[in-house]
Amino acid sequence: MTGTLYGLGVGPGDPELVTLKAIRVLRGLPVVAYPAPEDGASFARSVVASRLSPAQTEIAIRVPMTRSAAPAQAVYDRAALEIAGHLEADRDVGVLCQGDPFFYGSFIQIFDRLAAKFPTRVVPGVSSLTACAAAAGLPLVTRDEILTVLPATLSETELEKHLKQAESAAILKLGRHLSKARRVLKRLGLVERASYIEHASLESQKILPLDAADPASAPYFSMILVRRGRKGER
Amino acid sequence: MTGTLYGLGVGPGDPELVTLKAIRVLRGLPVVAYPAPEDGASFARSVVASRLSPAQTEIAIRVPMTRSAAPAQAVYDRAALEIAGHLEADRDVGVLCQGDPFFYGSFIQIFDRLAAKFPTRVVPGVSSLTACAAAAGLPLVTRDEILTVLPATLSETELEKHLKQAESAAILKLGRHLSKARRVLKRLGLVERASYIEHASLESQKILPLDAADPASAPYFSMILVRRGRKGER
Repeated sequence: MTGTLYGLGVGPGDPELVTLKAIRVLRGLPVVAYPAPEDGASFARSVVASRLSPAQTEIAIRVPMTRSAAPAQAVYDRAALEIAGHLEADRDVGVLCQGDPFFYGSFIQIFDRLAAKFPTRVVPGVSSLTACAAAAGLPLVTRDEILTVLPATLSETELEKHLKQAESAAILKLGRHLSKARRVLKRLGLVERASYIEHASLESQKILPLDAADPASAPYFSMILVRRGRKGER
Repeated sequence: MTGTLYGLGVGPGDPELVTLKAIRVLRGLPVVAYPAPEDGASFARSVVASRLSPAQTEIAIRVPMTRSAAPAQAVYDRAALEIAGHLEADRDVGVLCQGDPFFYGSFIQIFDRLAAKFPTRVVPGVSSLTACAAAAGLPLVTRDEILTVLPATLSETELEKHLKQAESAAILKLGRHLSKARRVLKRLGLVERASYIEHASLESQKILPLDAADPASAPYFSMILVRRGRKGER
């Protein structure tokens, strides 16, 4: 007998944008893990803080924000070992994830290390993608339109290649890559169709024309949405 | 004074995958609209049926499933007029949407007709995209990966063009287009990496290797997920 590993999507940030299922599963868990910065509080935990009980064991997965991937990989290795210890002792473990666990979620790191060994279930959440669209009042895709989701961490050349043919696109993980993404959209004549959204669904939410966004302060969890539509439609 | 138009995402089907916000907003609405087939019950309504009260006015938007778009457009025109009547009388109206309202939601039809005239808010929901990934235990995208979302209604040529370069792809709205999508994935050598998911999150949920899916019975709300990963990674 082993415990079950849960990936729990807690949505974009508004504590009301959590599903009933995530809340029910969370309440039944003896062990709750979540990503956190090296210093300071976990955003995913903050979204459901009022649902946690002191009886639950908490594991903060403190991921260093470095450009090199190696330190983070070592952190995930250690976290997976700690989580595996609980699962082997028949204790269920939930990993909280901002947005949805399988949509760029750091839960995938734990999943890749443990899903072959332990029963694993994922509770989907409201993703940043649809939360940003809702916040900005911008339909993402309709009818036969194609949606392309691009991390801003891609090279300028690659971003341009994909945005050139995109009908509707979301550019995620902006942070210090905002200027690069904006340069590409300018070259393609798409800046006026592009919106910038940060902290969707939170009180600190900002929605701006892309030209008004400030590259010096754009957080990692910000997004550009741009929609050209199908040829001839708009 | 006019009422506010709400687009309410109710998630993929499991009544537990509704957000607290959708439930709260829904309960406060005097008028609730939803898409429905020409005969029979509305799927979106069924997800939140236990939250509705007899005091609420209901509007079924009965959309004919024809290949030509014209009859559906006339239905949306009439529904928008009826909804506008309530909004003008200062009654809030919520339009229920399976999944998320701005992710291929028919709510966009109502939004396009009314958002310029009335205050409009959208409550995002768990989309079919992340619900299918969660159900199948398949990460959608991680790190620098690109996600391409394609409606199966596209031409075979167009599907092939996009799938040829896709790192991770979701093919939606399968129904009678399943055979076409499968032919394309076969030509590209991707069938063995592809999974078929129908009715994600419901008791009738099915997850199959793509080769085992039955084109004769695939519903419109089914999906193929296929992930190749970044070059050199897998």
